[in-house]
Amino acid sequence: MLRILLITGLAVIPVYFLYKGNPPPLPDLNLNEWWGPEELKMLQDKSIRPFKVNFSNVMIEDLRKRLKRRREYVPPLEGVGFEYGFNSGQTERWLRYWAKKYPFEEREKFLNRFQQYKTNIQGLDIHFLWVKPDISKDVETVPLLLLHGWPGSVREFYETIPHLTAVSEDRDYCIEVIAPSLAGFGFSDAAVRQGMGTAQMSVVMRNLMRRLGFEKFYVQGGDWGSIIGGHIATLFPQDVLGFHTNMPLTSSSSSFLVPLIGAIYPSLLFKPNEVERMYPLKDFYSMIMEELGYFHLHATKPDTIGIALTDSPAGLLVYILQIFSAWTCREDTARADGGLNLHFPKEQLIDNIMLYWAPNSINTAIRLYAETFSKKHLETKLDEIPTPVPTWLLQTKHELLYQSPLVTKFKFNNILNVTVLNEGGHFVALELPEVFADDVIRAVGEFRKWNKRNEKAEL
Amino acid sequence: MLRILLITGLAVIPVYFLYKGNPPPLPDLNLNEWWGPEELKMLQDKSIRPFKVNFSNVMIEDLRKRLKRRREYVPPLEGVGFEYGFNSGQTERWLRYWAKKYPFEEREKFLNRFQQYKTNIQGLDIHFLWVKPDISKDVETVPLLLLHGWPGSVREFYETIPHLTAVSEDRDYCIEVIAPSLAGFGFSDAAVRQGMGTAQMSVVMRNLMRRLGFEKFYVQGGDWGSIIGGHIATLFPQDVLGFHTNMPLTSSSSSFLVPLIGAIYPSLLFKPNEVERMYPLKDFYSMIMEELGYFHLHATKPDTIGIALTDSPAGLLVYILQIFSAWTCREDTARADGGLNLHFPKEQLIDNIMLYWAPNSINTAIRLYAETFSKKHLETKLDEIPTPVPTWLLQTKHELLYQSPLVTKFKFNNILNVTVLNEGGHFVALELPEVFADDVIRAVGEFRKWNKRNEKAEL
Repeated sequence: MLRILLITGLAVIPVYFLYKGNPPPLPDLNLNEWWGPEELKMLQDKSIRPFKVNFSNVMIEDLRKRLKRRREYVPPLEGVGFEYGFNSGQTERWLRYWAKKYPFEEREKFLNRFQQYKTNIQGLDIHFLWVKPDISKDVETVPLLLLHGWPGSVREFYETIPHLTAVSEDRDYCIEVIAPSLAGFGFSDAAVRQGMGTAQMSVVMRNLMRRLGFEKFYVQGGDWGSIIGGHIATLFPQDVLGFHTNMPLTSSSSSFLVPLIGAIYPSLLFKPNEVERMYPLKDFYSMIMEELGYFHLHATKPDTIGIALTDSPAGLLVYILQIFSAWTCREDTARADGGLNLHFPKEQLIDNIMLYWAPNSINTAIRLYAETFSKKHLETKLDEIPTPVPTWLLQTKHELLYQSPLVTKFKFNNILNVTVLNEGGHFVALELPEVFADDVIRAVGEFRKWNKRNEKAEL
Repeated sequence: MLRILLITGLAVIPVYFLYKGNPPPLPDLNLNEWWGPEELKMLQDKSIRPFKVNFSNVMIEDLRKRLKRRREYVPPLEGVGFEYGFNSGQTERWLRYWAKKYPFEEREKFLNRFQQYKTNIQGLDIHFLWVKPDISKDVETVPLLLLHGWPGSVREFYETIPHLTAVSEDRDYCIEVIAPSLAGFGFSDAAVRQGMGTAQMSVVMRNLMRRLGFEKFYVQGGDWGSIIGGHIATLFPQDVLGFHTNMPLTSSSSSFLVPLIGAIYPSLLFKPNEVERMYPLKDFYSMIMEELGYFHLHATKPDTIGIALTDSPAGLLVYILQIFSAWTCREDTARADGGLNLHFPKEQLIDNIMLYWAPNSINTAIRLYAETFSKKHLETKLDEIPTPVPTWLLQTKHELLYQSPLVTKFKFNNILNVTVLNEGGHFVALELPEVFADDVIRAVGEFRKWNKRNEKAEL
């Protein structure tokens, strides 16, 4: 017992100093940095123009030819599922579906079911969905910036948007959704020069909201969207009314140290369900090693793999679907189909891939990793700077990058709630659209109360 | 001064114990493990059959179509060379060359200039070059097993083989070369089930030499060939007359600890030229991080990227050439052409890529990483087991995975010589074929003397 007390005592000291340590200053970002071609600087069109997805016949024809003229893939090793990556035995049926059964015209219509626009921010045409609820009187509409990541896209939100924007008699607010394609993703332009990391992306996204007339707004994010949302809450806390994340993850020094210190006696610092997901650390880090090879490549040589995936729709498909398999439910990796058939209808997954193929954006999208892990970007130390913005964590059962709220709290000082789901994975908005929407709506309600309390307190 | 002595004293202790520690036992490998389809076990043909490379018209036609029907690649970021991976601005000229100018027929002839064979080892047809010198009397012919790696192939050795196998009046021996394609590479069959790591590969290569009638032989290797050659010297020291490596690299606990200990005061343990290449450790490890993304992916999800590279010759080309750029001279990465034009004629590089494209072997080749980094394979701890086989190190100027001979010596106890070149990179046999051959010939001469001395000592 004495030993435990001693160890805890010793462990608490560094944790205390981590809490109390002075954060670095906010980085000095140019809020008007120009990312487009230099010669277009004088010609910027600040209008908000309607946009529609267009699957041209030329593109479809070319794509189908590529999908049909396929080489023989080497068979998977005997008895293997997705452990060596995408199971080549599954390739045939996916490619056949995409080439022969995927209803391009119908899916194009589906993708155009919501109002979409483009507007030029800092030299880049940014594409976004803008979905407003059917407003009845006495209901306040509040704006929610919905941020996707990789290899997702705005397609992740199509099923959840009707729930998010629904009007209910149970509450005095409803939500309008602004879901942009990140710069370089989908139908948004990509930066033409170096330096567009997540910090710079967060400036673009905040400027988009300003362009649409929103000085204050809510933010929701997963994957890169969660990192970028966290940056917006850090750089512009006065603009963000609340931050909901389904991938609560910070990477400050404390994010690494606290789990290490906790390893001495996990149950002293963490709840049983947290301990189960964090320890033994060896397993956690070996999982990270096994699943983040693509991350390592994107962060260092995005253009090499980018060229391969630009040329081959088969390559793009298996590259993206393997991630959907591992990150939706890693245990399904042992299955021949990687579990894909258990969680998503085929057309959902192909829709998402089309948002990389049609606009030819896979290469520019994965550059975000390299820019964010550049020396210059890491020096901004944004993850070491806490934010007072009220925050709400949604933890799905199968999110690989699990982090204990105790750790997340170092950065997000006002965590109002942690929803722990007993289902769902990394792409929860797509997988469980109602559950996701309910949680976001609940979060917005609590953010509103919190903000009112704090406004009063300030008066 | 006292401080330095004290530090050295403290540093020497663990180094001493690393030297003296008991190595683990040799792993219990099945020397007849069957890697082919189970049903062929009773039908094994042990003959040695002549083989010729055949670029079929069907394959060439399909390849050209794929190369010509290319999509628009996104432009590189402004002012960027190969820092983000292959520069897409260079893609066009490479693909045009391959599709329109690469003389398939002539190169097929070139690739068939040496005698080639296939023979079935443990269920797999193994392809190899077997080049014998023009023997005059009074000259002893000695066999040399030449082992390539990834993304190389037997093509790396075509220019050096005439030098290696030349007869000279200055010496009483000449060399016959056996250069196999590793299992799963080039025209060699791939294992159909899990577990073919470098240890198992070394058994296959040694069994190949036995099939050809060589009980004792010399081994030369670079890249994976160096790792596999080192394994052969460890598992079958009685068979190996000498081991020449142009990538001296061991990965035992001492390989990591000694450089760490040395970091306290590098010049006490290492020579100035070694210090320059090893320290600061931070730079060395950040270089490793930047250059080994592909390694991480191969070691975890080879089949995902394998499918993409099987489908797209453009993808295969940029993927392989980016490695040739970085590993031949990393400083050239800043150039728009990645330095490729400085070091290799185009047809050499495309020949090498053809040995992945024509036999459709990229996917099976890169599985070697996953098998070698599997938990089971790592447990063999082959790198912790020293070998008495006389060893000769060739260190090129630009080899990225530099290791000090002081470290290499923990495993290779009898290092007869270290040749330090002031030029050359990872693919030195291809880049400097004469320099490479001279060094190997010199090594074989010294191995012979050493073996004779040791035989006498034993009598």
